[in-house]
Amino acid sequence: MNSLIEIAEYLKNTDYSVILTHRYPDGDTLGSAFALCRALRKLGKRSNVIVNGVLTEKFKFLADGMEEQNFEYQTVITVDIASVSLLGDYKEEFENKINVCIDHHAMNTVNADLMFINAKAAANAENIYELIQILGVEIDRFMADCIYTGICTDTGCFKFSNVTPGTMRLAADLMELGCDSERINRVMFDTKSMGRIQMECAVLNTLKLYCGGKIAVISTSLAMEKETGVDDADMDGLAGIPRQIEGVCVGITIKEKAENHYRISVRTLNGINAADICKQLDGGGHHAAAGCSFDGTLEEAAAKILAAAENVLNNQR
Amino acid sequence: MNSLIEIAEYLKNTDYSVILTHRYPDGDTLGSAFALCRALRKLGKRSNVIVNGVLTEKFKFLADGMEEQNFEYQTVITVDIASVSLLGDYKEEFENKINVCIDHHAMNTVNADLMFINAKAAANAENIYELIQILGVEIDRFMADCIYTGICTDTGCFKFSNVTPGTMRLAADLMELGCDSERINRVMFDTKSMGRIQMECAVLNTLKLYCGGKIAVISTSLAMEKETGVDDADMDGLAGIPRQIEGVCVGITIKEKAENHYRISVRTLNGINAADICKQLDGGGHHAAAGCSFDGTLEEAAAKILAAAENVLNNQR
Repeated sequence: MNSLIEIAEYLKNTDYSVILTHRYPDGDTLGSAFALCRALRKLGKRSNVIVNGVLTEKFKFLADGMEEQNFEYQTVITVDIASVSLLGDYKEEFENKINVCIDHHAMNTVNADLMFINAKAAANAENIYELIQILGVEIDRFMADCIYTGICTDTGCFKFSNVTPGTMRLAADLMELGCDSERINRVMFDTKSMGRIQMECAVLNTLKLYCGGKIAVISTSLAMEKETGVDDADMDGLAGIPRQIEGVCVGITIKEKAENHYRISVRTLNGINAADICKQLDGGGHHAAAGCSFDGTLEEAAAKILAAAENVLNNQR
Repeated sequence: MNSLIEIAEYLKNTDYSVILTHRYPDGDTLGSAFALCRALRKLGKRSNVIVNGVLTEKFKFLADGMEEQNFEYQTVITVDIASVSLLGDYKEEFENKINVCIDHHAMNTVNADLMFINAKAAANAENIYELIQILGVEIDRFMADCIYTGICTDTGCFKFSNVTPGTMRLAADLMELGCDSERINRVMFDTKSMGRIQMECAVLNTLKLYCGGKIAVISTSLAMEKETGVDDADMDGLAGIPRQIEGVCVGITIKEKAENHYRISVRTLNGINAADICKQLDGGGHHAAAGCSFDGTLEEAAAKILAAAENVLNNQR
């Protein structure tokens, strides 16, 4: 483990960097990358962000005015990337060339010359904020927007358990630095496509309760996706829906990914271990959020994951 | 206008207070009232909160351990009450006896011996936090929970434009004082009754777009309410749904309140004046949120409010 001071020193003495985001890039990896890239350019360095996949409409403002620079890279930086498998198509080119890794996932397995992992940070963007300050770059409102986006998206707008007093104070600082928190919050949390709204409705129609209302199961099908015209971004967060229902402590979402192939997400409350549920189907994850895959019919998938959930529920009592 | 120091001085020299909340009490009026009541009792004073209506299930924890005390009141305090009409059934008894009014609505019309209105506070609970500090009472975790509840509910979990850097820093302080922000956020923002979920689905089925997708209209009926078994608390916030749709800048919600009697809520974006829309149906409100009533059929109500919205939209261009 290195300190951010060491990383700042290294970045001051190098140039021509590419900053890698993880695949299916979210607000935190993108916010971290564009904030750091802006700071390095302010220091007179050449730096590009490699967006690993599609830069979703709602995240495009993060890249405002950031034209791609033409150079051969000498420095490779990863942000919010817990393992090289998350590099996706860029894995082969970069996995053995990572100079600097800045992340907030406790289980980071990246091999870089310099590593900074701060699992207490609610968002990796918190680490980037600190790094930019150590670099001595004045944080402008564009960087503030990037960092704020990382923080608000990784905390569900300051709602989740990862939020610390430090997170709140950092957000206060960003507001004073001119970030447009109101607009960012609206775009991230109060804007839905018609497709997303129709998808939510369709998904709720599949909702079933089990175990006296303790387990809720929803499912999505490829047909539903086609009918509502949703994209990947629209599908985001659907897995959070079943756990929201009063009395539910195991929320299960079964997504059809291909014919007879399903991806199952499990979200839990009240200390029920989601990873223990998913392990029974050879999956894994965290205590309150885990996942697994299933090959077979929807009915078989539902029966299997329900049995696994009931197992864990019954052993808890 | 008085200062919080004057109000603290007054409260130290008086006793036997009742703290009034507004009717249909929300998280801010209740959080403000129970936090202040707890502080006054810690000072050895007798104090009760008068919950003006039903203490909804999700707010019951605010009153934990706060048994009603038996005394004749000598001091009347209102919190988060902008006008005496919001006293509802308590108006007659109290409207001319208010000693202290603490609020954050700019347009406050209450007549009290001592008035403190701070319209910059996102929630009135921010004012109460400051007052309790001036009173010299140590803020325990119960008070912190009350104040946090007021702030998070009045800001949509730190999402709305009323949030200031001070709001964020105050929330950080409350977390350090032991408030259970995670649980409060989950109860306030991530818990829905089955009835609410069914209601959302039913409401989305009524959604219609007009003006090239700039206006969205949803409606609720008494039959829908009966079928889904929702209560008043479940109906909360439905009016925010149509404005969430991508491209919509006027979101209209038409609620059937009785046969041929409708309550219409208008929410706007992009500088479109909701009050100007509702004025055309003899209603009023704020720039981004306003309301009016309509007597007639649903179709007539929809036609009338749509015409009013189109008027304002066309005059904007």
